[in-house]
Amino acid sequence: MAKNLTTREEDYSKWYNELVVKADLAENSGVRGCMVIKPYGYAIWERMQAELDRMFKETGHQNAYFPLFIPKSYFSKEASHVDGFAKECAVVTHYRLKNAEDGSGIIVDPDAKLEEELIVRPTSETIIWDTYRKWIQSYRDLPLLINQWANVVRWEMRTRLFLRTAEFLWQEGHTAHATKDEAIAEAEQMMNVYSDFVENYMAIPVIKGTKTASERFAGALETYCIEALMQDGKALQAGTSHFLGQNFAKAFDVKFTSKEGELDYVWATSWGVSTRLMGALVMTHSDDNGLVLPPNLAPDQVVIVPIYRNDEEFEAVDKVARDLMKELRSKGIRVKYDNRDTQKPGWKFNEYELKGVPVRIAIGPKDVEKGTVELARRDTLQKEFISNENVVEKVVSLMEEIQNNLYKKAISHRSENTTEVSSYEEFKKVLDTKGGFILAHWDGTAETEEKIKNETKATIRCIPLDGNIVAGTCMVTGNPSQRKVLFARAY
Amino acid sequence: MAKNLTTREEDYSKWYNELVVKADLAENSGVRGCMVIKPYGYAIWERMQAELDRMFKETGHQNAYFPLFIPKSYFSKEASHVDGFAKECAVVTHYRLKNAEDGSGIIVDPDAKLEEELIVRPTSETIIWDTYRKWIQSYRDLPLLINQWANVVRWEMRTRLFLRTAEFLWQEGHTAHATKDEAIAEAEQMMNVYSDFVENYMAIPVIKGTKTASERFAGALETYCIEALMQDGKALQAGTSHFLGQNFAKAFDVKFTSKEGELDYVWATSWGVSTRLMGALVMTHSDDNGLVLPPNLAPDQVVIVPIYRNDEEFEAVDKVARDLMKELRSKGIRVKYDNRDTQKPGWKFNEYELKGVPVRIAIGPKDVEKGTVELARRDTLQKEFISNENVVEKVVSLMEEIQNNLYKKAISHRSENTTEVSSYEEFKKVLDTKGGFILAHWDGTAETEEKIKNETKATIRCIPLDGNIVAGTCMVTGNPSQRKVLFARAY
Repeated sequence: MAKNLTTREEDYSKWYNELVVKADLAENSGVRGCMVIKPYGYAIWERMQAELDRMFKETGHQNAYFPLFIPKSYFSKEASHVDGFAKECAVVTHYRLKNAEDGSGIIVDPDAKLEEELIVRPTSETIIWDTYRKWIQSYRDLPLLINQWANVVRWEMRTRLFLRTAEFLWQEGHTAHATKDEAIAEAEQMMNVYSDFVENYMAIPVIKGTKTASERFAGALETYCIEALMQDGKALQAGTSHFLGQNFAKAFDVKFTSKEGELDYVWATSWGVSTRLMGALVMTHSDDNGLVLPPNLAPDQVVIVPIYRNDEEFEAVDKVARDLMKELRSKGIRVKYDNRDTQKPGWKFNEYELKGVPVRIAIGPKDVEKGTVELARRDTLQKEFISNENVVEKVVSLMEEIQNNLYKKAISHRSENTTEVSSYEEFKKVLDTKGGFILAHWDGTAETEEKIKNETKATIRCIPLDGNIVAGTCMVTGNPSQRKVLFARAY
Repeated sequence: MAKNLTTREEDYSKWYNELVVKADLAENSGVRGCMVIKPYGYAIWERMQAELDRMFKETGHQNAYFPLFIPKSYFSKEASHVDGFAKECAVVTHYRLKNAEDGSGIIVDPDAKLEEELIVRPTSETIIWDTYRKWIQSYRDLPLLINQWANVVRWEMRTRLFLRTAEFLWQEGHTAHATKDEAIAEAEQMMNVYSDFVENYMAIPVIKGTKTASERFAGALETYCIEALMQDGKALQAGTSHFLGQNFAKAFDVKFTSKEGELDYVWATSWGVSTRLMGALVMTHSDDNGLVLPPNLAPDQVVIVPIYRNDEEFEAVDKVARDLMKELRSKGIRVKYDNRDTQKPGWKFNEYELKGVPVRIAIGPKDVEKGTVELARRDTLQKEFISNENVVEKVVSLMEEIQNNLYKKAISHRSENTTEVSSYEEFKKVLDTKGGFILAHWDGTAETEEKIKNETKATIRCIPLDGNIVAGTCMVTGNPSQRKVLFARAY
């Protein structure tokens, strides 16, 4: 298969960049650091959005929309938040352009300077909590469970399609609660919603855990996260959910009267996933032939390609193809029938392999004679002939089979690339030879964490919520450690 | 009904502003000119999005996403476009903030000035056509039928919730075609998609037509539009679809090789509707008691309110209510069961009237005894008792009946407020006494159009596509006129 795609072994990073562009997922734009999400990539994102949105609504959340711009002063209200988010950002300073008097083109009108600069939202806690002050007075107004689908901007210097872009799309949940326990339960619930989604729809296994203090969201008391392992042995944070305590309520003066008539600050959470998930999807399942998509998210689950040399053959093949398409659609399968006469079958086979369509069905004149079709799986690249009576049933069962197979392969890959180490030497050796997740004892201090990061570029991905909790001694300092934590080099 | 709502007669404008806020549709934010779309308002917008998105996909369009920022120089490439859109806009000039050295807070870092300013998109033709240059080489790449759901910013000085805000949400379609005829057909098709949606889902009748040259979109050769009439006799442009000729293809050098091997510039359209439609929805149907929503767009089509004085009564009522809710939901009806014990039935009646829920069902102990429920229509405010056996059927038929009734009422209102005039005197008199749509002869010149606008604040809303085409003489100049055109004062 000549895809002209760099192989993963040759250069994993190059393979990723090429694949994202060639499979029509996204490309760089004329605006530094900003991507164009192409229709095929956007169709996958839309499927992700639809499932997540359903899950959010089933857990009682409503969508709303808050302003793109945040006045500069809002960021100063929450002390730790400003350092985390109000630094590398897009700043709107003027509100008008005009024609230059010398005819050289359009220039910024110096008379149209804003009194206060506006920041293009890097995240919306500040503007949302400024609004919640008006919405929350009593326990009757709580919990307030709101989500927003939006674009955000963080001025990144080195960008990569989906993984790190100046502008990206995401959802951000922002909830307000009467009690600390309820807010913590919400933050944990949303971490679980994310892991359900990533495991069952994206077929990516994740480790659930909490971040160390130094890796927390700016302004959070606890950050819950889900961590996935990519094929190259690097980790990717797939979603985070934050327990914000009363920090934002205090910063924006959001109080409520309890049932007992007492006035208290509100408890908060926020949680988000972004188009970064598209990068995780590509890097978990795809191969040297192109994308491999899990059926639950594939815009087209099945593609039918007709094969013929003349009109007579086309007519016969076309009838079988259309009947099959109808039958499959009636079973809820998303089917594309590519009957374009501008492209040859071989070109189409290549194209749909590159685009990761889970099942390809080819129908030629001989198949019509024999009452069969040729069926090819994208995940295993296996082909077989199936009789017309069995093909619908086969395709339906394949959807689940392929979904499960991708998940199992990813689980195996992760198992093979998760190592428990007991010394710092071993830690560094594993990191440099195979990479992957490394479980090791750590003394719980920010100093040791920083030292490891500086020396190895590995960070603590999370303190896992599950798994054996056995005490030991820190691999670096020898000081006591309550449990092993999860390290990796990460995207 | 004490809604504390200003009546339409007292002050239509004030009534609108109050209603939008009190019915929880939207409110002003701390950012000048930017609104917060509240959950209830956003739920209506989501229903609009879902229907429009389905209609776009059924006509062969795909969604994609393009950058929020547009380099300043892009605007200069299409001469008429720059005057229309690159003036009152949000300009990003810097990409970093820092702590002031004197400790006074965070300031814009003067060392982080962008080489070229970025404009927050007021509309995306320029960035999209800059991208299409890479996507289009051959007739095989055409037509390219793309839509984007996005936020855009136009720096408006006087803003009103939904009707005119600095940031708003919209969709913008951008298509590329091999021939002029095909592009014109596309622009007309999308105008028809819009009118179908606005008439059948929003229950708002519209006049389809084309804009005069001076009212066209900046860069368009023809602008198709749909014009609606609000209750106060002012017109509202509900959607536009533009035939852009080869203007943007030429500005961004987008050429294709035809089947015959010839190189030519691509033909373009763009089309959009925005959250402004929310304003049209409110101003067409609502009354002094609050919102009136057409069933096709109402987030809750039916609300069930239980009435009881004690636990025993609640149990009996609750059972009937839950059974009814299940049955209605099985018929595809969106039902809310408000069994909160924190609010009284009277409060709930008021609340759902204010929020425009099409049908309210109240069930009390006496109803349970008699096997009936009380059913109230929001559009007519009529109430009746219905036996339990008939209520589901009744509600199902009411959905269509209410939808049709709202549309008919709006049609009647428009008929009563559309006047054909033959002199400029009559024109001015009608405008000042009853307003509404006015059909009048116009000589086709921009000068006369401008004079009428300056003297009366009325503009030509469109040159209608349908209706009698009878020649005459211009009401202002007496020069020949091919047909009457549609005037109004407008939002």
